[in-house]
Amino acid sequence: MAANDPLSIGILVIMYFGDVVFAVSGALTAARYRMDVLGFVLIGTITGIGGGTIRDLLLGRPVWWTQDPTELILCVAAALITFFVSPGENNRRRGMVWADALGLAAFAVVGCHIALAFGAPFVVAVFMGMITATGGGLLRDVITNTQPMILCGQLYATTALVGSLTYATLAYLAVPGLMAETAAFLAAFSLRAAAIVFDIRMGPPGEFLRIGASKDSTSE
Amino acid sequence: MAANDPLSIGILVIMYFGDVVFAVSGALTAARYRMDVLGFVLIGTITGIGGGTIRDLLLGRPVWWTQDPTELILCVAAALITFFVSPGENNRRRGMVWADALGLAAFAVVGCHIALAFGAPFVVAVFMGMITATGGGLLRDVITNTQPMILCGQLYATTALVGSLTYATLAYLAVPGLMAETAAFLAAFSLRAAAIVFDIRMGPPGEFLRIGASKDSTSE
Amino acid sequence: MAANDPLSIGILVIMYFGDVVFAVSGALTAARYRMDVLGFVLIGTITGIGGGTIRDLLLGRPVWWTQDPTELILCVAAALITFFVSPGENNRRRGMVWADALGLAAFAVVGCHIALAFGAPFVVAVFMGMITATGGGLLRDVITNTQPMILCGQLYATTALVGSLTYATLAYLAVPGLMAETAAFLAAFSLRAAAIVFDIRMGPPGEFLRIGASKDSTSE
Repeated sequence: MAANDPLSIGILVIMYFGDVVFAVSGALTAARYRMDVLGFVLIGTITGIGGGTIRDLLLGRPVWWTQDPTELILCVAAALITFFVSPGENNRRRGMVWADALGLAAFAVVGCHIALAFGAPFVVAVFMGMITATGGGLLRDVITNTQPMILCGQLYATTALVGSLTYATLAYLAVPGLMAETAAFLAAFSLRAAAIVFDIRMGPPGEFLRIGASKDSTSE
Repeated sequence: MAANDPLSIGILVIMYFGDVVFAVSGALTAARYRMDVLGFVLIGTITGIGGGTIRDLLLGRPVWWTQDPTELILCVAAALITFFVSPGENNRRRGMVWADALGLAAFAVVGCHIALAFGAPFVVAVFMGMITATGGGLLRDVITNTQPMILCGQLYATTALVGSLTYATLAYLAVPGLMAETAAFLAAFSLRAAAIVFDIRMGPPGEFLRIGASKDSTSE
Repeated sequence: MAANDPLSIGILVIMYFGDVVFAVSGALTAARYRMDVLGFVLIGTITGIGGGTIRDLLLGRPVWWTQDPTELILCVAAALITFFVSPGENNRRRGMVWADALGLAAFAVVGCHIALAFGAPFVVAVFMGMITATGGGLLRDVITNTQPMILCGQLYATTALVGSLTYATLAYLAVPGLMAETAAFLAAFSLRAAAIVFDIRMGPPGEFLRIGASKDSTSE
């Protein structure tokens, strides 16, 4: 793979899709705390572009949206629409979970690709893919004073890690860009899908993995 | 406006004033949690220079106080004095709210100016003005484990947004520096003043704006 | 002191030791919240390298572990081992406190040295030493939604400050590197040791310092 190749159109589309999905997810969190319109915009935007921002700061890259604010505006618009449309939450819940899964998989691939293209070592690039996919949600949870979802036993950050690791491995093996992107995306998404459908969870020491709900499910 | 013009003396004075005011506000938060002297200094300093620090990190500018620690020292001193003087909180409460409003308006203008001078796009510069004005308080609330004030319905971040947007617009229209600064500062400050006097709040979806207190005011 | 001298072998060893100790400390926090294996790894890693990361971001240095991931891998390994070994917490508690004290002292010296070598002013370098030593623990507490330990009256951040200040002063006085490092390390460590043994605490306004436990010790 030539790491400097631009992202394929397919991934770009899914990336914008991911921005919108995460921004809406942040805005719905703002709704739960009965925040005002600016709260919707801030939390939505931070959730949408926060992960990539942390990645760029750590890598020493220019933070991309300070130079081309397209995605910033996209997130603001998505959060505003969420505020004024004010969806019936239960109704949209199911759809959100699946859209979020698509965004998570896309961001893991995108983040890992950007880190590799920037010359980051293998291990670091894998880490950056995971941070890109989960950092926005982490900031959202920290700011709204919530126990971070990525740390609560959902098979969530793990799926981002799998997508990022798959992509970095395929890129290392010189698999062509589009094929590597697709394979890594599908790996992450299908694992997350399995986790949603079969309620796969990871547990504390002594309970590495669990499938199916148990009574003391304290996580979000 | 030539964006590279240095800030006018008036704004510089108000900027230092803003540092002190926000540092004292952070130190008073430390007092509420009965922290020790280092807690006063850390929370005070983070509140005073945190917003500008986030702005500089995002823009890729050198973080200014790591090269010229004047404002760092100013914040430390203000927090130390707050610890040892230990003001009767109720007594100073009213004064703090108004001083904070001055700092908020000043930081919004300063932050937007710095971002424009650094070459940031219009939308990004407006965002940076808001971040400069509210980022320190956000960090303060996150670290002390408090629901962030800027997200709790006070007409607070909104006034920073108005100041920043006004300044960027006037600068775009080539209004001379001093005039643009003054107009934007007054726009932000008078809106905040109106919000304090008339208790204007913004609400969750379905309750965009509210004037005068209601019973379920859960915010700070 | 020639600020560009590499760190002495002794300090390097203690620095790696500090990474491991802080990573284990973060992993034990993850254990308290019954997190899964990825939670152990994330919180452990953030605790281990978070302080140095904040320092590098603020100084505008490249974040070191994005270029040489040795310490990143070290922290991941330490957190993984903690997950699978799952130590009896009470048993290890005493050892952890002392190991943590060693890491705190080492990181304060290392952080101050790196900042001075990068050309930071005296005051800023002292601040950076304290941030390097305490920033990882601060991020750990913010992410796990805990009242930050460094702000709860333990003589903790203060000892980092003492170590950092001692090192910067000795470096300013041109004391040779090894001697300055050792003296500053011992100053910080012995103060922390005294705080542990004699239960020295700092209090809110009106109670600057206290030795020996009192009834209302609410801190961790």
